[in-house]
Amino acid sequence: MRVRNKPWAKEKLESFPQFVIHNPEQHKGKWNEVFGNSNPLHIEVGTGKGRFVTGMAQSNPDINYIGIELADSVVVTALDRIIEANLPNVKLLNQNANDLQKFFDKGDVDRVYLNFSDPWPKKRHEKRRLTYKTFLDLYESILIDGGEIHFKTDNRGLFEYSLTSFSEYGLLLTYVSLDLHKSDYEGNIMTEYEEKFSEKGFPIYRSEVKFQNEE
Amino acid sequence: MRVRNKPWAKEKLESFPQFVIHNPEQHKGKWNEVFGNSNPLHIEVGTGKGRFVTGMAQSNPDINYIGIELADSVVVTALDRIIEANLPNVKLLNQNANDLQKFFDKGDVDRVYLNFSDPWPKKRHEKRRLTYKTFLDLYESILIDGGEIHFKTDNRGLFEYSLTSFSEYGLLLTYVSLDLHKSDYEGNIMTEYEEKFSEKGFPIYRSEVKFQNEE
Repeated sequence: MRVRNKPWAKEKLESFPQFVIHNPEQHKGKWNEVFGNSNPLHIEVGTGKGRFVTGMAQSNPDINYIGIELADSVVVTALDRIIEANLPNVKLLNQNANDLQKFFDKGDVDRVYLNFSDPWPKKRHEKRRLTYKTFLDLYESILIDGGEIHFKTDNRGLFEYSLTSFSEYGLLLTYVSLDLHKSDYEGNIMTEYEEKFSEKGFPIYRSEVKFQNEE
Repeated sequence: MRVRNKPWAKEKLESFPQFVIHNPEQHKGKWNEVFGNSNPLHIEVGTGKGRFVTGMAQSNPDINYIGIELADSVVVTALDRIIEANLPNVKLLNQNANDLQKFFDKGDVDRVYLNFSDPWPKKRHEKRRLTYKTFLDLYESILIDGGEIHFKTDNRGLFEYSLTSFSEYGLLLTYVSLDLHKSDYEGNIMTEYEEKFSEKGFPIYRSEVKFQNEE
């Protein structure tokens, strides 16, 4: 996503510590204290402008959500949404996905969402794709046993790649839709990008995979 | 496929025992004798009018092919193709796919092709889908260790179902294309159905999966 530089973004993010968590390292292993309950925690890696994570939080008050986004010029829009909705069950981290293990202990997270992640189509950039094996390692290291990844994208190449990457890793594919908006899947919350893209008539791909216990 | 009844089909199939193998049970474990060589054996389950299996046999003279098709009114067209091409490396079985174990020993077959199989869209017909677990059992019981299934279809529901069925079974997904004719896959041999369908601009889905050794 090409974004305008917003020099004031950093300052704004710092002004709302109840929504944008600073020093997330200090909450590792005890996120229930941040939310004031022990509900399941779902995180979105690459949360962008936050429409998905905010919509999910509104629809599912008994689940806690954390949206993680490195680009401060983008996540500031997610903050605006959360301020407006004033939701207790969604927080933002203005952080790098590579650092997930600094913020979460094994078992802190129940589900990881990946939505319209950067496809990095060039083979030499494979390691940057959020479904590359090193990222799957990272998710496994913070998820509960049997934790899930829910992934959607319009990018055919990324989806094909991800299905084989999941299989190679030994993940169980429990759901797949090759045209989400024509499927009978209910409760889909669209991202900004998804709405624009699907209006053009292209399919949205979606999958759910599950980490299996070693036997 | 709706087909005209051809009362003469049975008789014609019987007239060409060099192409349509009768009593295939007697060749179980020794198909190399039928082909006169020990090349790999690839079978197509549901071979229809035989364009795929004949085209593959022409393109790959060092591989033996067997097309299996129950409907004699359909497979007689496949026979015509083989008579015309007079190929030594392709045979037909006018048999039921449920009986594969009667004709093949464990390790007789190197690869199974499934092309545009009947989708059986109703949930109560799930067991009839050629990618249902009992069929996967059947293929595993005749394939070499590490044997493969190559599957293509235009039917989104069947493909989605099959990807989850493969995963549930523990098969390794080594290749997937969600729009075969726009992919860089080379050497695709189209079936009759595939040509008609893809002309309308709909995508063809294709996957390769591999049986993994138990460890």
